[in-house]
Amino acid sequence: MIKVSVFYPADGGEKFDHAYYREKHLPMIQQRLGAACLGYEIDKGLAGGAPGSPPPFVAMCHIFSDSLESFQAAFAPHAAEIMGDVAHYTDITPILQFNEVIER
Amino acid sequence: MIKVSVFYPADGGEKFDHAYYREKHLPMIQQRLGAACLGYEIDKGLAGGAPGSPPPFVAMCHIFSDSLESFQAAFAPHAAEIMGDVAHYTDITPILQFNEVIER
Repeated sequence: MIKVSVFYPADGGEKFDHAYYREKHLPMIQQRLGAACLGYEIDKGLAGGAPGSPPPFVAMCHIFSDSLESFQAAFAPHAAEIMGDVAHYTDITPILQFNEVIER
Repeated sequence: MIKVSVFYPADGGEKFDHAYYREKHLPMIQQRLGAACLGYEIDKGLAGGAPGSPPPFVAMCHIFSDSLESFQAAFAPHAAEIMGDVAHYTDITPILQFNEVIER
């Protein structure tokens, strides 16, 4: 299993609409990916590790899929629509990472 | 519910023993935290978002807990032991973040 992690750096912008992200953006991705989306997680950054420090990331999501290939095949036809929706909730440029899931 | 995320930046060091991390470090944390650890995830970085790019993070873990307070109360008595174990598997300085879990 793989996990696609998307990070929104705290120093990368001013705006992040957590409600839109939860209620519109991720459900839309899940619908478009269909069976290639085995589930997803959403996190809202609260704090950094040092006492009183801000979180490095404002928000994150993690999308689970069987393989890189199945994710990419399902994502590609909807990439323009999904990427075009980002401006509705943030002006932060996201960072993407593909992971092998070692423990879930 | 909260999630404690620990990131190991890919440009932060040379060494990461994924087997030790999975088989020794995280099970030790789970044992020490007891009921304050509701579960955890481990990820191994495969690739970045741009084709052919490396992952920003070599590895990540995410530890679930009921609240910041319950996590910190359970972690504090074992902090020295847990932090002292890090040198056994990596020379990367980890980045820590506390999150509110929006979706799991």
